[in-house]
Amino acid sequence: MATGRRRQGGSKARRAAVANAALVHHPEIRRGIPVMEVTDREGIELIHDFAMRVVEEIGCDFQDGESLDYWRQTGAEIDGDRVRIGREELLELVAKVPSSYIHHARNPERSVRVGDGHAVVSPSYGAPFVRDMESERRYATLEDLNNLQKLNHMASTVHIAGGTIVEPVDIAVPHRHLHMTYSGLKFSDKPIIGNVTARERAEDTVDMMKIVFGDEFATNNTVTTSLINANSPLVWDETMLDALKVYATHNQAVMCSPFSMAAASTPASNVGTVGVVLAEALMAMAMTQVIRPGAPMLFGVPAMTVALNSGAPVHGSPDSAMVQFLSSSMARFYKIPHRAILNVATSKSGDMQAAYDSMWGLFPSMLSDANWLTMGGGMLEGALTVGYGKTMIDFEQLDAFYHFLQGPDFHDLEEVFEITKKVGPGGHFLGESHTLNSNLFIFESQHNNSYEQWDVEGRLDSEAVGVRKAQRWLQKYELPAMDEALDEALLDYIARRTREIPERG
Amino acid sequence: MATGRRRQGGSKARRAAVANAALVHHPEIRRGIPVMEVTDREGIELIHDFAMRVVEEIGCDFQDGESLDYWRQTGAEIDGDRVRIGREELLELVAKVPSSYIHHARNPERSVRVGDGHAVVSPSYGAPFVRDMESERRYATLEDLNNLQKLNHMASTVHIAGGTIVEPVDIAVPHRHLHMTYSGLKFSDKPIIGNVTARERAEDTVDMMKIVFGDEFATNNTVTTSLINANSPLVWDETMLDALKVYATHNQAVMCSPFSMAAASTPASNVGTVGVVLAEALMAMAMTQVIRPGAPMLFGVPAMTVALNSGAPVHGSPDSAMVQFLSSSMARFYKIPHRAILNVATSKSGDMQAAYDSMWGLFPSMLSDANWLTMGGGMLEGALTVGYGKTMIDFEQLDAFYHFLQGPDFHDLEEVFEITKKVGPGGHFLGESHTLNSNLFIFESQHNNSYEQWDVEGRLDSEAVGVRKAQRWLQKYELPAMDEALDEALLDYIARRTREIPERG
Repeated sequence: MATGRRRQGGSKARRAAVANAALVHHPEIRRGIPVMEVTDREGIELIHDFAMRVVEEIGCDFQDGESLDYWRQTGAEIDGDRVRIGREELLELVAKVPSSYIHHARNPERSVRVGDGHAVVSPSYGAPFVRDMESERRYATLEDLNNLQKLNHMASTVHIAGGTIVEPVDIAVPHRHLHMTYSGLKFSDKPIIGNVTARERAEDTVDMMKIVFGDEFATNNTVTTSLINANSPLVWDETMLDALKVYATHNQAVMCSPFSMAAASTPASNVGTVGVVLAEALMAMAMTQVIRPGAPMLFGVPAMTVALNSGAPVHGSPDSAMVQFLSSSMARFYKIPHRAILNVATSKSGDMQAAYDSMWGLFPSMLSDANWLTMGGGMLEGALTVGYGKTMIDFEQLDAFYHFLQGPDFHDLEEVFEITKKVGPGGHFLGESHTLNSNLFIFESQHNNSYEQWDVEGRLDSEAVGVRKAQRWLQKYELPAMDEALDEALLDYIARRTREIPERG
Repeated sequence: MATGRRRQGGSKARRAAVANAALVHHPEIRRGIPVMEVTDREGIELIHDFAMRVVEEIGCDFQDGESLDYWRQTGAEIDGDRVRIGREELLELVAKVPSSYIHHARNPERSVRVGDGHAVVSPSYGAPFVRDMESERRYATLEDLNNLQKLNHMASTVHIAGGTIVEPVDIAVPHRHLHMTYSGLKFSDKPIIGNVTARERAEDTVDMMKIVFGDEFATNNTVTTSLINANSPLVWDETMLDALKVYATHNQAVMCSPFSMAAASTPASNVGTVGVVLAEALMAMAMTQVIRPGAPMLFGVPAMTVALNSGAPVHGSPDSAMVQFLSSSMARFYKIPHRAILNVATSKSGDMQAAYDSMWGLFPSMLSDANWLTMGGGMLEGALTVGYGKTMIDFEQLDAFYHFLQGPDFHDLEEVFEITKKVGPGGHFLGESHTLNSNLFIFESQHNNSYEQWDVEGRLDSEAVGVRKAQRWLQKYELPAMDEALDEALLDYIARRTREIPERG
C-alpha cells in the first residue's frame, strides 16, 4: 500500500539530534520502498545451479577434524579435507537456519531483530590504523577504540556496538579480545560483536556475555553476532571453524562471510563470484545446523574486486555493487539473513574518491535489502584505517538512508494540496507552518550557505567538519548506565584471564 | 531474460581509454537491469490525481500573450495569465509528445536516441565560476568553456556537447550564446544544447544549426535539445516561453523543467513536490503540442530542497532522490521522456561531501531510468561552480554506472564454472587467461596501492589527481573534423550577428 506511510524521526528527532545526539536511537531499518533487483527468477536459478554444482562437483575444504566429524553425521562425501554434498541434503540443513533472530543488548531497548525485513548497521571493523583528529594516520590504541565506541553509541543509525571497531594495537594480541568486548559493553549498551581470532577468545566472549546476561539466557538466546571469513576459493581454516563451532554451540549468530576478491580468490565475474561465495557460505551454515539446529546464521558477502594492475583489493566498484545486489537476491531465495559491507573506501584520505568508493557500497547494500550492514562508517584504505572525520560524515549518510528507506511521504497529501492552492502560482511555501514542521532531510555537515561565508569560516572541508563534530560529541558523551557489580565482575574476569593467558600466546 | 547478456566496452575499451580517451564513445545507456521503483501503482495514481487537481483547480500562470493565444485554441479556461484545463484535454495533448526522439549530431555517429529505454548524459550547465587547475574559484572564461567542451568531447559516457557548460563571463551577455553554440560545434561533434535566455538567442541557435544541417533537415529533425525552467510554483515567464515557442516551432526538443526547491517553491513534501512540478511541466508540454504536434519534449525535474536554516537550495539529499525516483515513475506513466539532474554537489570544494552530494543524484537518476541526465560531472556549490578536477573524477563515475547498468554478466557462466573447478579450493584465479581478459571495472583515479606508496607519491587527493588528468587530456585532445567551409560560415554568422546585436542589449 502506498498511502499512509508516516516518517519516523523527522524534524523532532533532528532537533534532538542537534541538541544531544545520544538521545536518538533509530529502530531497525524497515523498508518503505520495494526491494530492488538486478536480475529475474531465471538469473537467480542460474546462480543457484552454479552454487549447487560447486558443492556437488568441486566441494569445499574444511581444515579441521572436528568439523569433518560433523560432516560425517551427514551424507556428505569426504575426501581428506574436501567435503562435497548433494544439493538436496545441503538445502535441508540450510533450511534450519532461522530467517531472522533477535540479537539481545544489555539494554533491552537496544535489542534488535535481524532478518525478515529488519536491517541493522554495525560499526567499522578490524582496522589497525586510525586517521586521527589531525588527519594523520597512526596505529590505533585502546583509547581510539573507546572513543569510537562512544561515537557509535551516540549515532542514531548505528544499531550495534563493537567488536573490533579498530584494533587496540597497544594491547597484547592474546589479551586484546577481553578489552574489546569490555569496551563495547562499557561504552555502549547496544548489541555486541564477538571475537573470532581463536577458539579460546570466542569462549572468553561467551563467558563475558554469560556474566552480563546469566548462563541460561546467554546460551538460549543470541547475545553476540560474529564475523568469520572463508579463505576463498572454497577453504574454511581451523581458526575460523573453531570460532564458528563455539558460537553455534552456544546459539550465537555468525556471519559466514567468504572474503571474496573477484579476479583473485573468486572468478573475474560478478555472477561467478556470487556462485562461489554462496557455495562456501551455505556449506558453513549447513555445518552449524548439524552442531545446533536453529542456530542463527547469516550469509555474508564483503564484495571486493582485485585491481589487476596492483593486485590490491578494491572496495567500491560497480562489480562489487552487482555482487551485493545478486547476493541479496540469493539470500531471499534461500530465506536466510544476509550481511553486506556498507561503507569501505579504497581511498587513503578524506577526499572525493573516499565518498565515491563508500557510496558504491552504501547504495547497493541499502537498496538490496541486506539485513546486517557491517562497516557503517569511517573506513578508509580498504578497511585498514578508520578516520574520525569520515566516521562522523558517514553517520549523517546513514541517517539519510534511514530517512530515504522510509519511502515516499504520502501521509499528508490532502493537506499539501490545500497549501498549494492557498500559496498559488507565484507564491512561496517558506512561511507555511507545514514547511516549518518539515520532515525534509538536511545533512548537518553539508555547508549550504554561500561560498563567501564558507571562505571566511576557514574553507573547512568535510573531513575537518567531521573531526570537529567528533570532538563535540566526545565532550557531550554520557556513559550508559551499568550496574556497578556487573562492571566489577567483568573487570575481575579480565584481570583473571589476563593473568592466565601469557602475553605471547 | 537473464542469460546471454554481454558487456559492451570492458577491458578492450578500457585499454583504449587509457591510451587515448577520445577513441571511446559509449552509445546511449540501455539498462540490463530492471527499473527500480519506490512506489506502486496506487502511489502513482495518487500523484497523478494530485497533479490533475492542480491543473484543474489551481492552474498555472503563462506570462505571455502569444502563449495564452495558443491556450485559446484549446478548451482551457483562461483568467488573466492563469490557465486551467481539464485532465482529459491536457492528457490528449500530452499524448502527442513522442516517447522518444533522435537528437542528431553533426557527426552522425554521435547522434543519439532519447527515451524508450535510451538514456544520454549531458555535461555541466550554467555555472558562472570554475574551480581551476590550482583549485581556486574564479569567474569562468571562454577558454574554460572550450577546455571543458574538449574534456566532455573525450569522455566515454558523456553523449552531449555544450551549451553553457560554464558561462563565458568574459564575453558580453548579448553575444555569449553565439560563442557557446560555436564552442560546442567546434570542439566536439556530439549533439548540442540550445540557448534559451531570449527569443532572439534561441533563433540564433536555430539559424546556426541550419548552417550546419541545412534548412530543411534542421527543422524537420531534432538537432538541439534545450532546457527551460518554470518559476515554481506554477509560473512560466515570457523569456522561457519565448524560447520554448521558438524551439517547438522548429521541432526542437525542450526539457520543460520546473526549478523546484522543496519547502520554498514547492511544498515541503517529496510527494507534493512531484505533484506540483508535474502539473507545471505537463502544461508547458501540452502547449507545445498546440504549436507543433509531435515536437519532442521532456519532463524535467531538477530535484532540490531548501535548507530551512539558510534558505539556500540544497542538491543531494534523500528527499530529492525520492523526488527523482517518483518523477521517473510518472514519466513512464505518461510515456514521455524524462530529464534528471545527475551530479551536482552543494559542497564548495573537492571533499567527501562533494562526492556524497553527487551520489544522491547519480544513483537515483541512473537507477530510476531517466532518459536525459544533465550535469554529468564537475558541478559544485549548488551548480554555481564547475571544478576541473571534479569533472574528471566524475567522468569515471559515469563510466562505472555505464558498466553497472549493463547488468550482471551471465554470458560466460559455464566457462567460469570450469575455471573454478580447475582452480579448486585454495587456488587462485589471478593467472587465468579469463582473469587477464577480465571485464571487471577499475576506477583509473582510485589509488588502490599501498598507503606507503601513496605517501611517497605526494599524498594526492582525488581532486589533484583529477586536475592532472584534465591536463593530460587537454594535451592529448584532437579537434574533431569539421569542413572548413562550414567553420567559416559559422564564424561569418557570428561576426555578422556580433555587429548587429549591441553589446549592452
